[in-house]
Amino acid sequence: MITRDQQAEIDAARAATAQTRRATVPALEAMLFQATPVLDHGFVRVIDYMGDDAAIVQAARVSYGRGTRKVSEDAGLIRYLMRHRHSTPFEMAEIKYHVKLPIFVARQWIRHRTANVNEYSARYSILDREFYIPSPEHLAAQSDSNRQGRGDLLTGDAAAEVLDILRSDAMRTYDNYAHMLNEAPDGAPLDPARQGLARELARMNLTLNTYTQWYWKCDLHNLLHFLSLRTDAHAQYEIRAYADAMLATVEAWVPQTFAAFKDFRLGAVTFSAGMLAVLKRMLAGEAVDQKASGLSKREWGEMMAALGREG
Amino acid sequence: MITRDQQAEIDAARAATAQTRRATVPALEAMLFQATPVLDHGFVRVIDYMGDDAAIVQAARVSYGRGTRKVSEDAGLIRYLMRHRHSTPFEMAEIKYHVKLPIFVARQWIRHRTANVNEYSARYSILDREFYIPSPEHLAAQSDSNRQGRGDLLTGDAAAEVLDILRSDAMRTYDNYAHMLNEAPDGAPLDPARQGLARELARMNLTLNTYTQWYWKCDLHNLLHFLSLRTDAHAQYEIRAYADAMLATVEAWVPQTFAAFKDFRLGAVTFSAGMLAVLKRMLAGEAVDQKASGLSKREWGEMMAALGREG
Amino acid sequence: MITRDQQAEIDAARAATAQTRRATVPALEAMLFQATPVLDHGFVRVIDYMGDDAAIVQAARVSYGRGTRKVSEDAGLIRYLMRHRHSTPFEMAEIKYHVKLPIFVARQWIRHRTANVNEYSARYSILDREFYIPSPEHLAAQSDSNRQGRGDLLTGDAAAEVLDILRSDAMRTYDNYAHMLNEAPDGAPLDPARQGLARELARMNLTLNTYTQWYWKCDLHNLLHFLSLRTDAHAQYEIRAYADAMLATVEAWVPQTFAAFKDFRLGAVTFSAGMLAVLKRMLAGEAVDQKASGLSKREWGEMMAALGREG
Amino acid sequence: MITRDQQAEIDAARAATAQTRRATVPALEAMLFQATPVLDHGFVRVIDYMGDDAAIVQAARVSYGRGTRKVSEDAGLIRYLMRHRHSTPFEMAEIKYHVKLPIFVARQWIRHRTANVNEYSARYSILDREFYIPSPEHLAAQSDSNRQGRGDLLTGDAAAEVLDILRSDAMRTYDNYAHMLNEAPDGAPLDPARQGLARELARMNLTLNTYTQWYWKCDLHNLLHFLSLRTDAHAQYEIRAYADAMLATVEAWVPQTFAAFKDFRLGAVTFSAGMLAVLKRMLAGEAVDQKASGLSKREWGEMMAALGREG
Repeated sequence: MITRDQQAEIDAARAATAQTRRATVPALEAMLFQATPVLDHGFVRVIDYMGDDAAIVQAARVSYGRGTRKVSEDAGLIRYLMRHRHSTPFEMAEIKYHVKLPIFVARQWIRHRTANVNEYSARYSILDREFYIPSPEHLAAQSDSNRQGRGDLLTGDAAAEVLDILRSDAMRTYDNYAHMLNEAPDGAPLDPARQGLARELARMNLTLNTYTQWYWKCDLHNLLHFLSLRTDAHAQYEIRAYADAMLATVEAWVPQTFAAFKDFRLGAVTFSAGMLAVLKRMLAGEAVDQKASGLSKREWGEMMAALGREG
Repeated sequence: MITRDQQAEIDAARAATAQTRRATVPALEAMLFQATPVLDHGFVRVIDYMGDDAAIVQAARVSYGRGTRKVSEDAGLIRYLMRHRHSTPFEMAEIKYHVKLPIFVARQWIRHRTANVNEYSARYSILDREFYIPSPEHLAAQSDSNRQGRGDLLTGDAAAEVLDILRSDAMRTYDNYAHMLNEAPDGAPLDPARQGLARELARMNLTLNTYTQWYWKCDLHNLLHFLSLRTDAHAQYEIRAYADAMLATVEAWVPQTFAAFKDFRLGAVTFSAGMLAVLKRMLAGEAVDQKASGLSKREWGEMMAALGREG
Repeated sequence: MITRDQQAEIDAARAATAQTRRATVPALEAMLFQATPVLDHGFVRVIDYMGDDAAIVQAARVSYGRGTRKVSEDAGLIRYLMRHRHSTPFEMAEIKYHVKLPIFVARQWIRHRTANVNEYSARYSILDREFYIPSPEHLAAQSDSNRQGRGDLLTGDAAAEVLDILRSDAMRTYDNYAHMLNEAPDGAPLDPARQGLARELARMNLTLNTYTQWYWKCDLHNLLHFLSLRTDAHAQYEIRAYADAMLATVEAWVPQTFAAFKDFRLGAVTFSAGMLAVLKRMLAGEAVDQKASGLSKREWGEMMAALGREG
Repeated sequence: MITRDQQAEIDAARAATAQTRRATVPALEAMLFQATPVLDHGFVRVIDYMGDDAAIVQAARVSYGRGTRKVSEDAGLIRYLMRHRHSTPFEMAEIKYHVKLPIFVARQWIRHRTANVNEYSARYSILDREFYIPSPEHLAAQSDSNRQGRGDLLTGDAAAEVLDILRSDAMRTYDNYAHMLNEAPDGAPLDPARQGLARELARMNLTLNTYTQWYWKCDLHNLLHFLSLRTDAHAQYEIRAYADAMLATVEAWVPQTFAAFKDFRLGAVTFSAGMLAVLKRMLAGEAVDQKASGLSKREWGEMMAALGREG
């Protein structure tokens, strides 16, 4: 994951401090630059940030200074903004991550367009020999009921065969990639008798579980949107692992916003007009079942799940 | 512009400092929160920032630490990125301003969509009694040659009449706004016998030179794009005055990027394929005039102006 | 609103038709170019569109042709996409409007950044002598309970005074604008002895209820987001009037998407984690009041309103 | 590339026409839905479009009808808009493509964020057994001078070995992917004794030259920006092949815009402030060489190349 040299660079960066007049968050400063491991070779680390809970309030009020209101008033305003989807004040805080992640995860992640990204270039440089191999507890069979979901765990020989395939195919294609590049770490040819294939071509031989890395910067509003989608139970486990690690950085950074986010987004449920009508009948004491509800089986099931009831 | 109370809030904010591990720029810290006056009642002040020249380089290299390269190597990379329009590393730095500006300037400015904005709400609050009145040296007649440009200065009675109209119309409509609102500073009715008109309606009586204010946050790449358009000689003077004030903050913040921006954007010229063909003929010693150039009069004139030659 | 000459241009455009292989919607074709009046001088008219309900399905399936599935299957997929916030297929349909609207409405509207806009330029051209004056049934006093809301209607002398102020201030500032411009319709000076003020300056004398106009283009996903915010009861009446007129065009254009939007957005309600806990207690038969709920008064009130119950 | 069934779907779509009042472009209608082959198994086909050259002009003028100006006036306005980077009118036209492309090309392409995308989902469906294998004339060695460029062609045994590796690794990893999925075309297990691995996991075994496909929709301004970057000689050949195919659709669609784009973008050159100073000295008759120019060797070389001169 992180080599000794890289950790030394990180430690050096952590050791250097400066005086600033900017909004500063000690709990996030404590985490700064340090890598949180994710999956088998990946990580997330915070590189920089701008703003804090008070800065969100300050922007919402377009104020001249930091203000003299109580913390409780600020928290109340943040809850109000979150509840009524006043998103612009949350756009006033910004965070930057360095992430190491498998390419197939990067391909899902990049679909969120409201972020700034600098990816390590395999046209320009050589990728590390690191691949994501699922741990046994995440090696799932295809779900029968959900075309884009997972079913039971694979076990025994079936699991062993899959792990063996993933590992050996990744290693073989990587080794062939390195062979085609024909490049020593110092840039000289490994075999002086051969020309190396252009990097921008050779990379196409790599498998999608190869790790890449990027700098990814996002404002808080769009980060929360990303996290609400990617910490969801329907998100693929591998990207959820990154979202969960980032959620912990948000909690350290903007605790009031995080609390409101948990209440009004992560733990919230939206009922359609049809579901709302059923809810009113239920609250009026009527015993409603799926047929009487007028909802499809699927929507009925989702509604009962949200209410924690048996369908 | 800034009241004594507001300046006290700003001073208090400037007095408070903290330790940070983040990239910090002393020259910009020195400016932080302080208002730079623009036009007669407006200002620009930097509220927060993220990143510096080195952070742009770090993102371009997707590196683990701040690196050990020389400053000159960083400057060279920044010039390369600017020249080849590799914009993503410049998106990795971010800045936030508090701006007070006339509404008609705000309407031009907001057309730049790649920024985050929180504007003071006249649905919610009452605007200040402040209007932009051009100073005599900016009171220009309509240009004859350019439908969206200025011609000679108005002087004498003509100037006096215009200034008188602008001033008296702004004051009358503002006073009628205040009358319709019927609201004392503490929120009580001025005249208890009357109901005040809803703020969201009363504001429509204000003229477009009334000042508003906002928090405006933008990444460096998009800020430079904004500045290249709005510091241009074709931009309306009133928005150019803001762009010029912001340009000075960019110079303090990211001096290497600023130098590259001056060379490859502000001072650069783009020649069309047709102009390039003419240029090659001229360099080969041919005396080309407009007719022989194949360019339209307008394009020929623009080309000669760029080359500092008489048409 | 629309002059005879403008209507003739519209009629000419409506009379011309062509053959196309593109997805075509007869119900929207019937409306095309025709202006729907909004407020006293404004309008909305559809200028162009791309896609239909089937095109959304086709994009979701990344298919080669229009497919042979039943309409009911398509409707089911659209409901699924809407319910699970799979927004990208709805981005595949696009619509373009021409809108005439008061400047203060334009200032709210432009905050939606994910659209393309061409506004009539008052730097370049002269605005029409048209202002929004609220009709008596929309002339509301400031709300006591909601800082950005309306309370009772103004009536009698109070109403008459407000209408008189709005009308006379708008006319006076416009007439002074025209006087300062000193320009006849053919561009010649009205008074040859005077120079006209530059258009880009003169416009600042106009009040915010002056009408402007623009071309506004948006994809269906972002349009629905705009409409969900701006048809909401908390939106200011004047922009809601435009949103309501546009909603009718969406119903004609993509009826399946419109039905799903009504069910899962317009008529839907989101309950926070805290509200959901209360709901479960109520469904279990407990009589919960605000104090026992653990919710703030405001949140309790919002929850009861959503359930159609007395607080 | 396109199967017989898919071509039948395309032909059926091409056969169906309707009457429309919308702006319609016969030259683009003729191409509609038809696939243009790109690389060995890829294609680009236009699925839908909105607007034409006249619609750009209409938006720039915010007009009521199609207008009565001459075609030459429209062309002049389009040239003016392009030259002065007035981008918003070009955002008023929109186009939608269906593209089949290797994953490593898709990863470059997706970096352009101002577009709408629906990609074929390998979480949900199974990818085709198709991989990009470069043709011999594109099998280049790494460039010695440009870290992200290509050098000489590989030939003989070296070429044969590379092609063999690319082909056999892609086939082996695909066959293992299919084996792990254990799914027949009808969804039944190939081997009923085994559970198939979840699709969302199995896909990670594929190599980056596997073909994917997507619907991609973009406005004309952002499309031109994409094309100016991706038809450039510095762009990787494989994405340039797609950009070139799309350029032909733009020429058919908006010929006036295309002509202006060629003159003011594709064939244009930007000289920095430093280069401009050198240019003026050269035009004044001075013989300037690199040393005397004050430019770096690289910038001098780029300038001489733009002027078609020996350095």
